[in-house]
Amino acid sequence: MKGKPLASIASAGLSKFGRRDGLYARELFLEAVNEAVERCPNVDLRKDVQALFVGHMGESYEHQGHTGPTLADWAGLLPAPAVRVEAACASSGVALRLGILAIASGLFNVVMVGGVEKMTHRTTAEAVEFLAMASDFPFEQWHGVTFPGLFALMATAHMNKYGTTEEQMALVAVKNHRNGSLNPKAHFQREVTLEEALASRVVAWPLKLYDCCPISDGAGCLILTKPELAKRFTDEPVHIVGSGQASDSIGVYEREEFTSLAAAKEAARQAYETAGLSPKDVQIAEVHDCFTIAEIIAYEDLGFCKPGEGGRLVEEGITALNGSMPVNTSGGLKAKGHPVGATGVAQAYEICLQLTGQAGRRQVEGVNVGLTHNVGGSGATAVVNIYKRG
Amino acid sequence: MKGKPLASIASAGLSKFGRRDGLYARELFLEAVNEAVERCPNVDLRKDVQALFVGHMGESYEHQGHTGPTLADWAGLLPAPAVRVEAACASSGVALRLGILAIASGLFNVVMVGGVEKMTHRTTAEAVEFLAMASDFPFEQWHGVTFPGLFALMATAHMNKYGTTEEQMALVAVKNHRNGSLNPKAHFQREVTLEEALASRVVAWPLKLYDCCPISDGAGCLILTKPELAKRFTDEPVHIVGSGQASDSIGVYEREEFTSLAAAKEAARQAYETAGLSPKDVQIAEVHDCFTIAEIIAYEDLGFCKPGEGGRLVEEGITALNGSMPVNTSGGLKAKGHPVGATGVAQAYEICLQLTGQAGRRQVEGVNVGLTHNVGGSGATAVVNIYKRG
Repeated sequence: MKGKPLASIASAGLSKFGRRDGLYARELFLEAVNEAVERCPNVDLRKDVQALFVGHMGESYEHQGHTGPTLADWAGLLPAPAVRVEAACASSGVALRLGILAIASGLFNVVMVGGVEKMTHRTTAEAVEFLAMASDFPFEQWHGVTFPGLFALMATAHMNKYGTTEEQMALVAVKNHRNGSLNPKAHFQREVTLEEALASRVVAWPLKLYDCCPISDGAGCLILTKPELAKRFTDEPVHIVGSGQASDSIGVYEREEFTSLAAAKEAARQAYETAGLSPKDVQIAEVHDCFTIAEIIAYEDLGFCKPGEGGRLVEEGITALNGSMPVNTSGGLKAKGHPVGATGVAQAYEICLQLTGQAGRRQVEGVNVGLTHNVGGSGATAVVNIYKRG
Repeated sequence: MKGKPLASIASAGLSKFGRRDGLYARELFLEAVNEAVERCPNVDLRKDVQALFVGHMGESYEHQGHTGPTLADWAGLLPAPAVRVEAACASSGVALRLGILAIASGLFNVVMVGGVEKMTHRTTAEAVEFLAMASDFPFEQWHGVTFPGLFALMATAHMNKYGTTEEQMALVAVKNHRNGSLNPKAHFQREVTLEEALASRVVAWPLKLYDCCPISDGAGCLILTKPELAKRFTDEPVHIVGSGQASDSIGVYEREEFTSLAAAKEAARQAYETAGLSPKDVQIAEVHDCFTIAEIIAYEDLGFCKPGEGGRLVEEGITALNGSMPVNTSGGLKAKGHPVGATGVAQAYEICLQLTGQAGRRQVEGVNVGLTHNVGGSGATAVVNIYKRG
């Protein structure tokens, strides 16, 4: 079974990320679906797509739950079964996993997976409150802890244990903003300097404004099929060869250590094992940089370096666009934006573009194996997938 | 493939339904898990259960999303992947479907599916508002339409087209309250008379208080495994031999007719087809009686009678506990209660008890084939499953 594709991506679409005033989530989703159809005209949505799995985190933003059939309707998929999944910021990473299961079950030949979030019409206070629902109510929210606070805790623990610096974290922002400036769909398309990043206002020490991803609107979708059917739809399929998902306690306080995410390490182990690959085989990755410290921890959890060496990796330019192991070429959550329900699928979208040579000004040459790392909340959910050019 | 089991139920557990003051959803879920473990001591949760799929409708009730890992933690399943799905009142019907896909994929041998909702600590106004999120925001909620209003619309259309009467609807309540009086886990364990039901106050004409299910707290879970492994865990497995799920527009106004649910008919068609069975093979059923009219429509959508004959079916006692085709022996949503995220799994729990002779004072003798019918919102999601005694 090792290395045998679990499912293949026939097409992918992404809406423009950012502040998308005057649109509902369903309209953003349709924008992504339309791109996927244009990219792969051989797929007849109504005839071919047999199910929809969609990540959508918050019913509160638009006072709208039951998003599965709503989006299936707008995408023209009725009466196909439609499933909304919520796993905080890993919602569409999990939706992608469900799509893989659906294909592997043999019960479906073609399914759509997607993700969407419309957030910016809300005040920052509202958005922060809705996001906080992904942390533990009695043991975290109730005491006023928000996600910047939880990740600040991880950052100080990492600084204390490994000597990671505020400069190293700021360099993640500098790198991802540079990448974002090359991505026409990114929320932020301008570079920032190390000095700007370090001088930005403190949100939760040591995390400053530029250490935090923005609140964004956006949507994405992928069309998955059986590997043996992929060539029927596209000449350039991308195969999903490894996949892992794991869980941890929702409350950070329950965990043994704060400087790595146990669920991410376990999800990575599963993904490498199913793919029959190791970290050194990965040539490009999109990781969950909700905060800059999260990208540094991701390097370590994914085995790109040893624990404690993540800060050095970005400092030495290894994960830069022209480095030996580019990470977050899309701009990441930091610059591309983080419409929470859409992020997992948006990561896979970027890997698809890179592996098929469609990434424009940020294209990395000669990459065949990519990885995505999607984290929910403070790490209670993690999904890792590995992709290979077809 | 027809009639070959898709998955098997090794064990099942259900919390007491009703007003469960002072408990969090996670504690209710643990109550259900503990029963499932007691019922099937051969399952070692931490060793055997490889994934959790859980239905949970509203993050607003407890200000708590990211329910998948939270419940996996409380059930002792970490680091197993955990997925929360939301499909309105069909959330755990869909979770059960995902569990079936997971088993069918061959990637898992044993998974848990569950559902939970904690609602009664909120005011009725809050609960009605949170429930309304499962209807269309711009085209329904915004105009003040709530679920009693939407189902009242279906009721008046059914009365107009087929001559269905308020008495026939009230008889659904009388039947289900009688069944509930025999179920020690039901929210309401007392009978009501036809006169009481008809005289109760109008909620949205023609639906009166006794035509509407209550707001309840509760949780349920099932342990699913591959059919060929079922006997390893229990001498009395229940096989899932048919399964269907379909979607419709979230807004009722978009539909061609109001007197049946297209998604339910399509889900039933798929379930009968995969099972290689027809409506006349079904000996017992749990259907989604969120309102009494919904049970009457369910009879028709499931093919238990012709369109327009549903009212007569209950009037003639055919669906009573001692009738030829007992429906909602548990008391249904009407009397057992409707903790929305738990309902789909709770229906499967009742069928498991009935098929294995464990239903106590409400046991129906000699039943081998059962069916569940779980509806989300006003019918944008529907799941139908068919079960056979192992």
